[in-house]
This record gives sequence, C-alpha cells and structure tokens, in this order.
Amino acid sequence: MKKTLLTGDRPTGPLHLGHYVGSLKNRVLLQAQYDTYIMIADMQALTDHADKPDWIKKNVLEVVKDYLSVGIDPTCAKIFIQSQIPQLAELTMIFLNLVSVARLERNPTTKAEIQQKGYQDSVPAGFLCYPVSQAADIALFQASCVPVGDDQMPIIEVTNEIIRRFNHYYGSGCFIECEAITSSTSRLMGIDGQAKASKSLGNAIFLSDSAEVVKNKVMQMYTDPTHLKVSDPGNVEGNMVFHYLDAFHANKDEVADLKAHYQRGGLGDVTIKKILIETLNTLLSPIRERRAALTDQICLEILQSGTEKAQHTALQMMKNVHALMGISYFKS
Amino acid sequence: MKKTLLTGDRPTGPLHLGHYVGSLKNRVLLQAQYDTYIMIADMQALTDHADKPDWIKKNVLEVVKDYLSVGIDPTCAKIFIQSQIPQLAELTMIFLNLVSVARLERNPTTKAEIQQKGYQDSVPAGFLCYPVSQAADIALFQASCVPVGDDQMPIIEVTNEIIRRFNHYYGSGCFIECEAITSSTSRLMGIDGQAKASKSLGNAIFLSDSAEVVKNKVMQMYTDPTHLKVSDPGNVEGNMVFHYLDAFHANKDEVADLKAHYQRGGLGDVTIKKILIETLNTLLSPIRERRAALTDQICLEILQSGTEKAQHTALQMMKNVHALMGISYFKS
Repeated sequence: MKKTLLTGDRPTGPLHLGHYVGSLKNRVLLQAQYDTYIMIADMQALTDHADKPDWIKKNVLEVVKDYLSVGIDPTCAKIFIQSQIPQLAELTMIFLNLVSVARLERNPTTKAEIQQKGYQDSVPAGFLCYPVSQAADIALFQASCVPVGDDQMPIIEVTNEIIRRFNHYYGSGCFIECEAITSSTSRLMGIDGQAKASKSLGNAIFLSDSAEVVKNKVMQMYTDPTHLKVSDPGNVEGNMVFHYLDAFHANKDEVADLKAHYQRGGLGDVTIKKILIETLNTLLSPIRERRAALTDQICLEILQSGTEKAQHTALQMMKNVHALMGISYFKS
Repeated sequence: MKKTLLTGDRPTGPLHLGHYVGSLKNRVLLQAQYDTYIMIADMQALTDHADKPDWIKKNVLEVVKDYLSVGIDPTCAKIFIQSQIPQLAELTMIFLNLVSVARLERNPTTKAEIQQKGYQDSVPAGFLCYPVSQAADIALFQASCVPVGDDQMPIIEVTNEIIRRFNHYYGSGCFIECEAITSSTSRLMGIDGQAKASKSLGNAIFLSDSAEVVKNKVMQMYTDPTHLKVSDPGNVEGNMVFHYLDAFHANKDEVADLKAHYQRGGLGDVTIKKILIETLNTLLSPIRERRAALTDQICLEILQSGTEKAQHTALQMMKNVHALMGISYFKS
C-alpha cells in the first residue's frame, strides 16, 4: 500500500517561482508515488486574515489553477478545501487538550511569525493554535510523509508530540507519527536580492505572470552594483540573475561557463538577463498554456471531486476516533 | 416567537443540591417559556479531563437522569451532547481568530480555575480556549438568554465581544448578542460549611443519594460548635442546617421561628437535623421515584432525539455562517 502524503498552501495569493522550486516541482514528482492529498488551507488563512474572507476565497481558485498548470494531476492527487471538512475542526478541538499553551508559545515557527507580524499583545488565539490545526490535518489523513521547509520542522515535532499523547490516552488504533520530507533546495530569493521571494514583499515572479511581466521583472533584477561596464569583472555571489539561472537553467555546465565569463569581465548584464528571460519563459510557457485552458468551472469540479474524497476519508477516520475515545453514543 | 435559552453542564459527576437550587429548579420553571437547549458539554469536560473519556461518557447518562428526574421535560427542552455537533467545533475555530490570546488569559473565570487546578506552566490550550467554545455554543443556537452564576459573567462578556467582531467582519445576519439570566440565589454551601457544595470536595448531597445517605450526611452537618447543650443559645449564621432550611424549607415563617428558638436556646441539633432530613426527603423522594423509572435506554432515546434536533439547527446555522463569510464553494 502507498504511503500517504499531505501538503498544501494557504490561499493568500498566487503562487510564484519560489513555490515552484521549493515545493510544487517536487509534488509533481511525488504525486503518483504516494497517496497524495493537497489541502487549500482557507481556514488557516483566516487565522491571520480574519477580516478578508472574500480575498481568501478568490485566491482559492488561483491556487488551484497554479496547481493544475504546473502539472498536479487531479487523478493522482486529491485537491481539497480545508473549510469543507468539519472533521478537521473537531479533531483540532480534541488535540487542543493534548498540548499546553506554553508549548505553543515556545514553537519557534509561530514565535518568529508573531514577531514578524508585529502582533505584540494581540496574537489571535487561532493563530497561536494553528500548529494544532496542522497536526489535525496531518493526523486525520494518516499522512506519514509531510514535505516541509527547514523552518517548518517544529510543525512535525508538535504533531508527533500530540499524536503520542493521543495514543497514550486513547489507544494507538488511529494515528501514526509522521516524517518530514525536507527539500534540499534552499529558498529562492526575490528579484531585489534583499529577501526570499514573497508576494507581500512584491519581489516575486508569479507562475501566472505574462512573458512581458517576466521580462520586465528580470530586467529590474539586482545583479552586481560594482559591475558598471561590460568589460568590468563582475560578482556572481548575491547576483540574482545567476541565483535564478542556478535554480532554473537546464544546463549546469553552460551556467558555469557564463559565471566564469562574467567574473573575468566581458559579459554584460543585459546578455545574462536575456538568457534568464528565455530560461524562465521555456519553463513558464507550457504552464501558461495549461492555465489558459482552465476555466473556473473545471477548477471547481476538480476541487469538488477532491473535497468529496477527502470528506469520505475524514468522516470514516473521525468515526474511528470517536469509537476509540468512547465518545460515540448512538447507532447511526 | 420564543427567545432561545441555552444552558448545560459538564458531565463530570452526578448533580447535587447546589445544582438544584442554583440552576435546575430555574430551568424547570423556564423550559416552556423559552426555546430551550440543554447541552451536556462532554467536549468541554475533556479540556481538563483529557485522560478520562470513559468516565465522562459514564457521567453523561447520570446527568440526563438527573435532568429528567428533577422535571426537565424533553418535549420542551432539547437535551443534546456537545461532541455530536461537529459544527460547534467548526464555529469555535472561526471564533478563535476573533479573540486574542491575551484576552483569554485575562478572563477572570479561567484565571481563577487555572490557579485552583495548579496548572502553572501546563495549561492545556483547550482549557484556555474553552470560553471561545462556549461562545460558539451560545452563538450557534442563537441563544439570547443564558442563565449563569455571578462568577460566570465573563463568559457572556467574551461571547458578546466575539459576536460583535464577527458581525463587524462578516455581517450581522447570523448572530445576536446574548444576555445573562443571573440567579438571585447565592451558591449552596457544602455540609462541612467550609466551601461551596462540590463533588470534588466530597461535601455535597446528590440528587441521586438514597434517604439513608441523606440522613447520614445531614447528621454530619456543621452546625455551631459552641452549642454544646440543648439549653445553650446557638448561632444560626454559618450553621449549615439553617443554611439548607433557608434554601429548601417550604415555609419561611416556620424557619424563622426555629431560628429564634435556636438562638435563645432550648432547641437541639438533632431536632433541627431531623426537620431538615424530612424537608430534603420531601423534595428528593419524587425525584428518586422518577429516577428509578428511567432506564439507560429511555435516556439514550431522549438524548438522541434532542441531539438530532440540535444537529438540524446547527447544520442550518453553519450553512448560513459559511454563506455570510463567503466560504461556501459547491452547490450541495
């Protein structure tokens, strides 16, 4: 039997090249190898955007289009919407009793995010608790494999702590501990070279960007401010064009030659930017074509079908949880 | 249209005379006047007894028997089990985003309970969040009236804060603010005179106690330790026999006469205890009779019927909530 893999995204904006190298590419490779669930975490998006449900809903369809256009195959992967699975909320409530407030406050991921968001004394309770909701997502689908970035390892740790506590109190018939699948790829930087690519920083190239937009963004890319004349020797470290060529160019030898040439002088920024534009458009153009063929209706149907399959699994699992805990009362 | 009233109990033990004077008696009076929901809060009981689901389940039936034997009429009041309404968990998750951790930590009720339970650094997250779950209970059933003790006013305050925030973000079509129905009765003391009557302190007279047990408990009651001989003048303040006569004797004038006689001397403890035993058995004997006629099967059927009605309301309300928030996606 295939192992189960759970992954997903908060629908807080269209996905970009950072998502592509960091996770989407890998999901496409893994989707047939595992029993794959991909969750669009709209409820989790509400934990820090409670005032914007319309915007979250709009993003749900964009994210589905991003998935399908990069090659996620809905006959392999069940794409579903978190809010349509009430059992996830039920299990979260049970899990909240199995972890202390202090433990959640010590979680390095949420701790960093709380600081970043400047919440100070007004951290929404749902935000502090979202790792518990993630634990429920993982546990309810019996996911043994969860792809995560390095900064998300605490999620796996909290999840396994809760699962062990659950199994200790109620018996081990329902939940298994999960393992992280960590990616070897380091995070993609933004075109400004100042921070990781991110929608909110406005420094990302989106999977849905047109060829024209990609061209403009690459032309603005941060390179080497000391490389003034073409003949000057240039730096490739911290040079975003080479960072992106490393991430996306198919031929590593060609990239190595370009780097050597740039370093000794005689290779202009415009030349390497043109090469990057071509590289990115080679990647993005089939993605754009698939996206153009997708209607909202097709996406909704795929989402509904994936959600129904997830609902079926969730209902069955929650029945088992109730039975194991002895909180079933009536014959249904 | 009748207003809706929501009330309930954690199934953490059989109910006692303190529950009777503090709430059950009032519920019987109000049940026909309001559209009444009575919730057995098994999920809330798990927030501080996560390791004892079997014991909680066992207590559910005891509590139903207590309800029915004091005169709760299941054709008026819908008695239901919290864990069987997953929509309550769903709404709690939405509400958790509308209240800050700091606000929950400032709640005087939970603050006192956390100290009392000696949690120190290990407060279960579910315990800190249980007022949010109570807010969801109240809101989901559109309860405008909630009977509470003086120490539970913070519940009503947090609930209305959350409802106002929800209405501000998502529109005011679903939830109405609630009002507390406060009881004029002060809390019943335990037979030891040291603290309020409570199961955990072992100082309570249960509704299910036999006549023999009631007699023994009254005979042990704390009276006036300076009242050594029958002829001595005695104190009625802090004297539990008079505290209970005040709460349960039908004739206030007779109680006043007894108090006067006791104060001037010549009235023995055994005499007043016998009067109290008779008073309590007059109250409890029809309750015991009704209880004896109740089988587990009858209670389960009543519980199932009430739960189905509550499920119907909850499903409909949660559909409205999803529609209002714009997080409905599919035609069902």
